[in-house]
Amino acid sequence: MAKKEQFVSHITPRSEDFSRWYTDVILQTQMVDYGPVKGTMVIRPYGYGVWELIQKELDARFKSVGVENAYFPMLIPESFLQREAEHVEGFAPEVALVTYAGGENLAERLVVRPTSETMICEMFSRWVQSWRDLPMKVNQWCNVVRWEKSTRPFLRTSEFLWQEGHTIHETAEGAEEDALKMLEIYRELAEDVCAMPVFVGQKSESEKFAGAQSTYSMEAMMQDGKALQAGTTHNLGQHFAKVFNIQYLSKDGQLEYVHQTSWGVSTRLIGGIVMTHGDERGLALPPKVAPIQVVILPIAMHKEGVLEEARKLEDRLRKAGIRVKLDDREQSAGWKFNEWEMKGVPLRLEIGPRDLENGQATAVRRDTLEKFTLPLEGLEKAVLETLDKVQQGLYDRARTRRDERIFTVTNLEEMVEAVDVKQGFAKGMWCGDAACEAELKAKTGITTRNMPFEQEHLGDVCCHCGKPATRLMYFGKQY
Amino acid sequence: MAKKEQFVSHITPRSEDFSRWYTDVILQTQMVDYGPVKGTMVIRPYGYGVWELIQKELDARFKSVGVENAYFPMLIPESFLQREAEHVEGFAPEVALVTYAGGENLAERLVVRPTSETMICEMFSRWVQSWRDLPMKVNQWCNVVRWEKSTRPFLRTSEFLWQEGHTIHETAEGAEEDALKMLEIYRELAEDVCAMPVFVGQKSESEKFAGAQSTYSMEAMMQDGKALQAGTTHNLGQHFAKVFNIQYLSKDGQLEYVHQTSWGVSTRLIGGIVMTHGDERGLALPPKVAPIQVVILPIAMHKEGVLEEARKLEDRLRKAGIRVKLDDREQSAGWKFNEWEMKGVPLRLEIGPRDLENGQATAVRRDTLEKFTLPLEGLEKAVLETLDKVQQGLYDRARTRRDERIFTVTNLEEMVEAVDVKQGFAKGMWCGDAACEAELKAKTGITTRNMPFEQEHLGDVCCHCGKPATRLMYFGKQY
Ligand SMILES: [Zn+2]
Ligand SMILES: [Zn+2]
Repeated sequence: MAKKEQFVSHITPRSEDFSRWYTDVILQTQMVDYGPVKGTMVIRPYGYGVWELIQKELDARFKSVGVENAYFPMLIPESFLQREAEHVEGFAPEVALVTYAGGENLAERLVVRPTSETMICEMFSRWVQSWRDLPMKVNQWCNVVRWEKSTRPFLRTSEFLWQEGHTIHETAEGAEEDALKMLEIYRELAEDVCAMPVFVGQKSESEKFAGAQSTYSMEAMMQDGKALQAGTTHNLGQHFAKVFNIQYLSKDGQLEYVHQTSWGVSTRLIGGIVMTHGDERGLALPPKVAPIQVVILPIAMHKEGVLEEARKLEDRLRKAGIRVKLDDREQSAGWKFNEWEMKGVPLRLEIGPRDLENGQATAVRRDTLEKFTLPLEGLEKAVLETLDKVQQGLYDRARTRRDERIFTVTNLEEMVEAVDVKQGFAKGMWCGDAACEAELKAKTGITTRNMPFEQEHLGDVCCHCGKPATRLMYFGKQY
Repeated sequence: MAKKEQFVSHITPRSEDFSRWYTDVILQTQMVDYGPVKGTMVIRPYGYGVWELIQKELDARFKSVGVENAYFPMLIPESFLQREAEHVEGFAPEVALVTYAGGENLAERLVVRPTSETMICEMFSRWVQSWRDLPMKVNQWCNVVRWEKSTRPFLRTSEFLWQEGHTIHETAEGAEEDALKMLEIYRELAEDVCAMPVFVGQKSESEKFAGAQSTYSMEAMMQDGKALQAGTTHNLGQHFAKVFNIQYLSKDGQLEYVHQTSWGVSTRLIGGIVMTHGDERGLALPPKVAPIQVVILPIAMHKEGVLEEARKLEDRLRKAGIRVKLDDREQSAGWKFNEWEMKGVPLRLEIGPRDLENGQATAVRRDTLEKFTLPLEGLEKAVLETLDKVQQGLYDRARTRRDERIFTVTNLEEMVEAVDVKQGFAKGMWCGDAACEAELKAKTGITTRNMPFEQEHLGDVCCHCGKPATRLMYFGKQY
């Protein structure tokens, strides 16, 4: 037991310092490490494994709605970024510039993409001729650079990985439809794959993407009650099309500007998964994004038949499409329990001499730590069912925790109580005024999250400024 | 037929100008486009689709030998690159530098990775403690930047996509074994997947990777007889380990330096596929890397039952795991034939009223242009078998073409004749002297390709300088 305590003590308790807990967990589980340049991260195999599973789930969904992958150059002429006024204002403070290459100073400085709207617009404008070419839907999986002052692995780093989708359409309706459709795909990813409940809705004018007509987001609540904007989609309208001259010949023979969308999620999602499900023992990974879904621990490994049966089991589960690992290292069982609990593996199977006698394995769920036995016969099916239960169990727990922390508010005092004292989201009517929003943020640090598509009428006046209000808004402090 | 001629005339004949033929094909099939910054490329969906299939094939093979994916920061402190003397000398002329970020000039300039040995060494040195941690095998799929003066899409561009694998080992044997094992995986990819025959062997001292102890390569011959270095693996020995202080505690309790490898292939492979299999009509894609393996063309589409049967077929083939596309656009059949031939789709299936009557589809192989009928009953199996034949047919054709252009040479005159006049590779004994190699290159532009693992004894003196020689070398002009 001494070993166990020593082991667990590496992780700061959530209640003591949530932020340190987070950092302890992601570093000690070897999901990530700090890069040598300030603000950068190395995504280690255990973290990257989660990203690969997210990619696989998303990529299949993108393709099913007609999106194709492509790759656009990372270096963007500085002049491109400057063409759309809001866009440059939004991104200029964070850009990194290549000024020297191939042995000489460059005539024009090149921006390392913070996002690729401008680059892709330039290419769209070359590629589109007529309405027959529309809609055009491309996505790229890539790295982007945004030079942030204050960084934290996965959540905010100078470089991160993401996907960015870009579509162009004949009609305004076509663009709006896609912006919403892609948000629905993101919601499905968050809730059904990452087991992370989200509110989907529209961002305020001030909080929308630089250059967009409207921005939609999904907002998740972390265990400390803070909001994580976990994905956004943008209806760009014709802003960029006009600047980059993306025109097509319509069915009527007229030159028209396209209507456009863009949308992205990033490795930030990994941080969201950690902060949604983790506990004092470390990670708890939803089976659908767990690089290892089942770990098999042979108990009294050197007793006859144990290791042999464990290997058979590993093989059977692998053939059933389960991501399984047999841990046959020379460490104590207690040490291994802690290791795999910390790493958040959804299901642990122990197999020892007594299990062998009884034709069973001992199972422990990571989410509930519940211990039970499963017959070796038909184990594949039982394991798959248990993984489904863990997936659902993690979602339900997160959903309950979040729902308990949503507080309806009608004035500033209640808002501050909800967000700062009770550590949750405030839900209230909002006037829609950017000045009201800015004042709230300046005074309290509380920001508008989104206006959920599922609107409710809670009253007629703004919960902050008291002016007439018709929209429901979620408020919270953000990552 | 007028349309056909007009259409085909866009592509310069290979015999007239192979280089223009290549550019015509990759641009017109929409595999790629030029990026706005000189020397960069946009990989369009049809080209990226090939890359995705290459990735899938390689990634599974990497994982099967215990390699895990990770992601390392793209921006490397300039000082890292400078630590290994040969390495900096090799890469300095091509680097791009970020000098300004987040609103200010950086204290230390950052290199946009041309390759990641230095970055990964830094991390390895933090991660490795004891022999228990070894071997460590990581790979990343990413972009790299090398500012080249003379560029061509896929073959040589300022930015390209690749994978770079990095492993560290306890012993010299462990590193050597992996360098060879990964080369064998590359050979399998080239020959069995891309249908591109290669010579595998060791590079000369002058041609090895900057900082490596030894470099192995696979060398393919393009249709113009020029060599494409299609993939390399490096045994780095302890060069980087000593510079970056990657030490581990051995079983004997001694601090030892690790032995290291790195290895990579890039989007250059796509160019290799194009130049290996294409013809006057355009691309010819091996089924295993073809984004569309089968195109179904309904003939007399508006006749009863035709489109319906075509859709049924599409559905059946898709369910059989075949990448299939139904082209039901309102274009003439002739136009579509040309389009899909140009795009190199391995198999075309036509289905018209007469085919329906006879319970068959008309099939045309892209590699041979052979036309034949296939019964609709059991079509899935017949299509899969035909695709296998196309795959093999493309390989055999490329192999025959290459083998016919390998010429044994014993002196300079024969070498120039073989490479420049007969447009192939010269095969001859070589002295191993860097001065001999440099002189040959300066005089003729001919370079050493590799010393194949399958050595032959053709004589005792160097085919260039006449000095004693013990090794067989392939010589050629390179892309
Ligand atoms: Zn207000
Ligand atoms: Zn010689």
